[in-house]
Amino acid sequence: MNNNIIVSSRVRLARNLKNQPFTNNTDFDKANNVLTSAFNALSEISNFNLYKCKNLKSEMLEEMLEDHLISGELINNSDISGVAISPDNTVSIMVNEEDHFREQCMLDGLNLKRAYDIISDIDNELSLSLDFAYDEKLGFLTACPTNVGTGLRASVMMFLPGIVLTNNLEDMISTVSKLGICVRGAYGEGSSASGYMFQISNQFSLGKSEEEIVQLVESTALKICDLEIKARKLLLDNNKDALKDEVLRAYGILSNCYKISTSEATELLSKVKLGADIDLINLKEPQLIDDLIKNISPIKINKLSNKVLNENERDLFRAEYIGRVLKNNRI
Amino acid sequence: MNNNIIVSSRVRLARNLKNQPFTNNTDFDKANNVLTSAFNALSEISNFNLYKCKNLKSEMLEEMLEDHLISGELINNSDISGVAISPDNTVSIMVNEEDHFREQCMLDGLNLKRAYDIISDIDNELSLSLDFAYDEKLGFLTACPTNVGTGLRASVMMFLPGIVLTNNLEDMISTVSKLGICVRGAYGEGSSASGYMFQISNQFSLGKSEEEIVQLVESTALKICDLEIKARKLLLDNNKDALKDEVLRAYGILSNCYKISTSEATELLSKVKLGADIDLINLKEPQLIDDLIKNISPIKINKLSNKVLNENERDLFRAEYIGRVLKNNRI
Repeated sequence: MNNNIIVSSRVRLARNLKNQPFTNNTDFDKANNVLTSAFNALSEISNFNLYKCKNLKSEMLEEMLEDHLISGELINNSDISGVAISPDNTVSIMVNEEDHFREQCMLDGLNLKRAYDIISDIDNELSLSLDFAYDEKLGFLTACPTNVGTGLRASVMMFLPGIVLTNNLEDMISTVSKLGICVRGAYGEGSSASGYMFQISNQFSLGKSEEEIVQLVESTALKICDLEIKARKLLLDNNKDALKDEVLRAYGILSNCYKISTSEATELLSKVKLGADIDLINLKEPQLIDDLIKNISPIKINKLSNKVLNENERDLFRAEYIGRVLKNNRI
Repeated sequence: MNNNIIVSSRVRLARNLKNQPFTNNTDFDKANNVLTSAFNALSEISNFNLYKCKNLKSEMLEEMLEDHLISGELINNSDISGVAISPDNTVSIMVNEEDHFREQCMLDGLNLKRAYDIISDIDNELSLSLDFAYDEKLGFLTACPTNVGTGLRASVMMFLPGIVLTNNLEDMISTVSKLGICVRGAYGEGSSASGYMFQISNQFSLGKSEEEIVQLVESTALKICDLEIKARKLLLDNNKDALKDEVLRAYGILSNCYKISTSEATELLSKVKLGADIDLINLKEPQLIDDLIKNISPIKINKLSNKVLNENERDLFRAEYIGRVLKNNRI
């Protein structure tokens, strides 16, 4: 059950080089030196794919953004920024984002400890050849004070339709914020929650050890998991027929419509995902729903079609694609 | 194409016995004498099934009403009224409705002339044993002056989604009313048009011969048919993608939902019917859509389930039934 609620785990470390101005206060040459030193160090320790953002087409950058491999800020800095990505896409090291280094590891399910171990090993190797700005009292120094200390943010992506549909979201957010945990939409700060997806992460990177922060986020995620399970039970007890009807209609529209937008498709797929999780619909391959949720954005649809489509053409292609994938999947 | 627009044709004659008070001004014994004379005459001329309304369960009466075999007024008079129905359900003779006799013949498609011939033959046979109230100047006498003369109403049931969806209904109604034709919902006076179904009939039964009235209704129906075909072309020219999307979503909901009301199901089935008529959806057996439209009312669902269900149970049964009938029907 946990794996259907906790979608993925991510740990990131913020690091900066000693005696170099922060990215928001630098000039082109200095920033370029940071990028060069970073890529040299990164190419020593693993077989990362190294990309300078200025060499990438905007479609490619948008796709990386959707896949959580880079941030919007890295794209904003694309004349001086770059990224190193592991062949399996689990590790990405952004260079010249808000900090010189944003090192992250993202794994499926609830896997924060392992993600921390992986990114920590890479960070240790990098620190052998790079001199990170570090203060004995404060810890790692960062561009924004909220990241000072461990420079660590541990986050889990959670699928919380039960909590949303029982109107318990605000209560949950206010409860966990007292524990130093914040809740955001799927694409971080300022993004809205599409398809009942939420990011749960630590608010502070100072005053606790890395292990304690990881432990706090993990235990909070498990508590939210329990709340979600209870909320789903409540939905089934109080509204089973209406909810089952909504889920089955969502499937019916998805598998038959002629055109559909990303946001409507995401909403309907999320309802079907919920329905599959709580046995309101039987699907031969429920995994297809998760795959579809990841593959229906404008960027992905353009890629799938091998064309640059306009919005209307994409809505037609998306409907045809979803219909083809779902065909005869309901048992 | 005509047969998908003109669903059925109906002709009815209003008749009253000479020297008997009209139904609205009679007493029980006199009305009962009318019923007895009527059934005696009817049993002589054909193998009608004869029913006294007071002997029928209300479910049976409601089903006959839905099938246009009897009227609401006949049910209101059920202590004194009766009906004779031919084995193939094409002819029904109501006794002690607003008039002593309401003789009707209903056939599929555009078939007014044949329907008139059939009911006229029966009327001639009845008049051999019964003495109908007739005035040399006025013609047949009836309870309501609008039926005096021929006592004939010729009507066709038409499926007019194109005219409705292009907002041309009011124009059409005002045009044909100048020809002496009126437009009503599927269940006659005061009923609303469910599923784009309309009854087109003559406004006056006086001043024209029977043949002229039948000819007028038939030629007007054909004109409306042309308007409907033009309206459908316009929809396809201007809104093809959006309309196709609506049709396919309607099919998706119908074939997957868990509960559905009569009115929503009728609306969605009517959209699919339109879509099948104009090739926006390909169905293995498009006839199933017409069958479903006739078989999803509360009365029919209770009958199909062999139980008396409450409204919620019927909505669940209806959804399951429609889903089963439509399963894998889309090509």
